[in-house]
Amino acid sequence: MNLRRKFLKFLAVIPLFANNTARAETSKGSKLNDQAAHLNWGHININVSNIEASIEFYRKLGFEVFIPAIPYLGLTMGFTFNQIDSASSTALGLPDNVSGRACIMQLGNGFPKIDLTQYDDLPQLKPLNNGDLGLVRICLGSSNLISDYERLVEENVAFI
Amino acid sequence: MNLRRKFLKFLAVIPLFANNTARAETSKGSKLNDQAAHLNWGHININVSNIEASIEFYRKLGFEVFIPAIPYLGLTMGFTFNQIDSASSTALGLPDNVSGRACIMQLGNGFPKIDLTQYDDLPQLKPLNNGDLGLVRICLGSSNLISDYERLVEENVAFI
Repeated sequence: MNLRRKFLKFLAVIPLFANNTARAETSKGSKLNDQAAHLNWGHININVSNIEASIEFYRKLGFEVFIPAIPYLGLTMGFTFNQIDSASSTALGLPDNVSGRACIMQLGNGFPKIDLTQYDDLPQLKPLNNGDLGLVRICLGSSNLISDYERLVEENVAFI
Repeated sequence: MNLRRKFLKFLAVIPLFANNTARAETSKGSKLNDQAAHLNWGHININVSNIEASIEFYRKLGFEVFIPAIPYLGLTMGFTFNQIDSASSTALGLPDNVSGRACIMQLGNGFPKIDLTQYDDLPQLKPLNNGDLGLVRICLGSSNLISDYERLVEENVAFI
């Protein structure tokens, strides 16, 4: 039993050493990478005017609902527009007492997720066009363009 | 030699069968998934006012330049603003004869990539705020918030 414990400890230590060695080599080879933050894809926020219609649209593209809510903002996909707490609305530059309905969707279990939010009674600028400054479009890849195109036409997705 | 060829053919056929069986089971279990298109993350288009400054910013977040151009639009990261061909500008709803500089960056070799484009001499709306309609923000995840925060502060990234 004691020997087994020692063995388990040994197993636990090896990956740590392996990891440290790999890091040291990386930082020697690439100073830039070592200076940068180590971030990963999280999510993309998309504000919509009708959450049910948007969920239906993204489902046609292959997304599924991952969480029927945005827990960190206290918003859900139900009929009730919940109020966002004032710390979050301040952090996001939103007016106080703003409320919304929301959900998180995903494409193939990976990242980024997409966070869809429908705000209630908020003056909103319209989505940007492709020539404007900022986040203007998302591009999805297809491994069979004709078959995916035909499926989407059948599902009444508009091609512009 | 003949036997080896037969064996190779056998190996090539097995995965096809395995794949078909897996698909049949998936479509039986999930009708929705079978009806949806089979799309993957491609890229996110971000229009910027100064491509060098934006590349520097995204590098601090851990992105690296994947391709110093957007080949399908004929744009590069060089000093010259190349003109986008008229079929592409029509497809994107851009004015004719628009020109730009651009590159593709990536975070950890994965998808989506980000396509940064600086247009020349184009009237552009400013980026949206968090309450507006459409694509409003990207969220990246950190596995060590304090260390990443400190790195970014050192690199003069502004926190708002």
